[in-house]
Amino acid sequence: MIYITRKEHFNAAHKLFNDAWSEEKNDTIFGKCANKNWHGHNYDLFVTVKGNINPDTGFVVNLKDLSSLIKRDVTNILDHKNLNLDVKGMFAMPSTENVAIFIWNVLFPKIKEMGAELHRIKLYETESNYVEYFGE
Amino acid sequence: MIYITRKEHFNAAHKLFNDAWSEEKNDTIFGKCANKNWHGHNYDLFVTVKGNINPDTGFVVNLKDLSSLIKRDVTNILDHKNLNLDVKGMFAMPSTENVAIFIWNVLFPKIKEMGAELHRIKLYETESNYVEYFGE
Amino acid sequence: MIYITRKEHFNAAHKLFNDAWSEEKNDTIFGKCANKNWHGHNYDLFVTVKGNINPDTGFVVNLKDLSSLIKRDVTNILDHKNLNLDVKGMFAMPSTENVAIFIWNVLFPKIKEMGAELHRIKLYETESNYVEYFGE
Amino acid sequence: MIYITRKEHFNAAHKLFNDAWSEEKNDTIFGKCANKNWHGHNYDLFVTVKGNINPDTGFVVNLKDLSSLIKRDVTNILDHKNLNLDVKGMFAMPSTENVAIFIWNVLFPKIKEMGAELHRIKLYETESNYVEYFGE
Amino acid sequence: MIYITRKEHFNAAHKLFNDAWSEEKNDTIFGKCANKNWHGHNYDLFVTVKGNINPDTGFVVNLKDLSSLIKRDVTNILDHKNLNLDVKGMFAMPSTENVAIFIWNVLFPKIKEMGAELHRIKLYETESNYVEYFGE
Amino acid sequence: MIYITRKEHFNAAHKLFNDAWSEEKNDTIFGKCANKNWHGHNYDLFVTVKGNINPDTGFVVNLKDLSSLIKRDVTNILDHKNLNLDVKGMFAMPSTENVAIFIWNVLFPKIKEMGAELHRIKLYETESNYVEYFGE
Repeated sequence: MIYITRKEHFNAAHKLFNDAWSEEKNDTIFGKCANKNWHGHNYDLFVTVKGNINPDTGFVVNLKDLSSLIKRDVTNILDHKNLNLDVKGMFAMPSTENVAIFIWNVLFPKIKEMGAELHRIKLYETESNYVEYFGE
Repeated sequence: MIYITRKEHFNAAHKLFNDAWSEEKNDTIFGKCANKNWHGHNYDLFVTVKGNINPDTGFVVNLKDLSSLIKRDVTNILDHKNLNLDVKGMFAMPSTENVAIFIWNVLFPKIKEMGAELHRIKLYETESNYVEYFGE
Repeated sequence: MIYITRKEHFNAAHKLFNDAWSEEKNDTIFGKCANKNWHGHNYDLFVTVKGNINPDTGFVVNLKDLSSLIKRDVTNILDHKNLNLDVKGMFAMPSTENVAIFIWNVLFPKIKEMGAELHRIKLYETESNYVEYFGE
Repeated sequence: MIYITRKEHFNAAHKLFNDAWSEEKNDTIFGKCANKNWHGHNYDLFVTVKGNINPDTGFVVNLKDLSSLIKRDVTNILDHKNLNLDVKGMFAMPSTENVAIFIWNVLFPKIKEMGAELHRIKLYETESNYVEYFGE
Repeated sequence: MIYITRKEHFNAAHKLFNDAWSEEKNDTIFGKCANKNWHGHNYDLFVTVKGNINPDTGFVVNLKDLSSLIKRDVTNILDHKNLNLDVKGMFAMPSTENVAIFIWNVLFPKIKEMGAELHRIKLYETESNYVEYFGE
Repeated sequence: MIYITRKEHFNAAHKLFNDAWSEEKNDTIFGKCANKNWHGHNYDLFVTVKGNINPDTGFVVNLKDLSSLIKRDVTNILDHKNLNLDVKGMFAMPSTENVAIFIWNVLFPKIKEMGAELHRIKLYETESNYVEYFGE
């Protein structure tokens, strides 16, 4: 069992705002993140998969294929988008936690089809804040 | 003459869209950056000032003061904002070039009052793209 | 269960010197780190907490609160200090290992009060050396 | 139990090419990595060991000794070398996965002799690709 | 006049070896870099262009076009190649200095056609070594 | 004319304290940096030299020699030292500005002897603060 990680990135706008709350409560809880006109981030995404090494290639998975999958099904969907408006049905609240779980749910079955297992989604919102999700 | 640089940062949403053009032309020129619902970035800002060393302090400028100035007059204005909507009268088109020039114009007279001279604004939009402006 | 990490930093002086040993033995074991007049580091601290997501906020913990806690109880105590002299009763030997455990002990009960659980303290002494502590 | 990590690095050439396959198949599977005349990388190696803290030193292991061991037995062997040609009997296919396992096998018994246990080999091939191996 | 920089990268093998010299002299001058079987690097390339801002776009040059140019004419030529063997007629000695000048000569006329001026090639061979060339 | 840069580093303790001033004034001007018991930093030093390329080597200077010079005459003198106490006659006030000028003065004549010219000393005190000195 060995673990391999691929880094991709996307840039997106979002805001953190709970419509069930007053503006004051949103300001208290979310601070500057509640700004009505949005703000945004450069997100760095690290996808870790685990599995056994194929002796013909020396690979757990072919990183060309893993990179193509992440780009097709994740970063092309999220890059240069508004995470509240442009990604319908994705999440009520585009916190880093919820975006990481969304990405896990998209990738988990696809990586199974590649013959490996998704181990971890690590998502940086800024260089000072990141989330890790292991699927449970 | 010696040069000292302070790094600060802000996170903001923007889009690149010229209202005088058709949607098609905007898409052709600006690509994903023209997305109507905005996208965003973590901006890293490096402010370089030059001057002579004060023998009492060993400083060109006191970095505590320089940092406070940049926060008060630049990053508090731009952080967690929409560069098209929230910063009235600032720029028609919030390209990295134009944001850098805006920051230069704000800081140049203030740094003169501190007894030094603004030398360079260096602004990273992503880790792969940055702009430098020297005031001319 | 999801994990979220906040990065903070502090700059401090220290030396590694065991008073029960001769100077020669200290030099042999600790090398340059035993310099009597101290040396210092820029420490990068990563605090990881785990818990369930609050559906109202999308958060495990509010990072504003986590950041304030770390600043108040850890980095304000250690920043611009001498880890041997200025932090009484903290540790006999301010190795990175011992500083990490000190930080764990300070933060563990406070993070419990925030409704989450401290998972890991990761402390960089230099970009080439870091320690991780999981509390056991 | 605490974990400490030391970073070292080496620069090497390699190619990914399976001699049992046609050139076409090698190109399909390995893409640019199959280039006959080699290519190369700056490898960053992170070695994590775990153990108890020696109360006399505050250390799990002395990082001077760990660094010397890694340099003597790993990076001096691999640095400025061709991983296919210069490291006889090491690996059929110098994928990052296989190089990480090679390094694990070299270091595991030596770190046991230092009174600690090897926990993880983390090897970056590029800033976007890395492998982790925990010995099983 | 404003300056904008785009970062691209490539991975390549090379060796530093002067055929007019004995092996001993090559070893003395180039050290490990003279290894006959090559070694390699992850090269980071920063291309800086200067010019005036187009008021319709806010751009000196369109970074999409600049990135495409660098990929087409530079990194696709050098990536996953052997700088001694695969890039015929390019340079006698693939030192970082000579590779930087090669890249300058390729890009200078093309950037002129884009309506801007090449200002600087900055090429990192490792994170500790880089070269800058301004064309004179 | 081409420019080449070598990065080295050192870790040191210092304080900023003007003995001609009261404690209150020192606190007002230098803030936490005036702490009597010192604090410290990981300093990153970038030394840039310029010159013509030797056609036999492809080098402005041999980086092995430049690195050895910087280690012997600068970082071995400053590493794991107290910049106020251990480096006699160096500087009244170990601000980053003054340390950079000290390094310039040490290296300038030595690099001339190597057949090149010192162009710039760039010294990071933290990742947010750096100084550049060009010798005039």
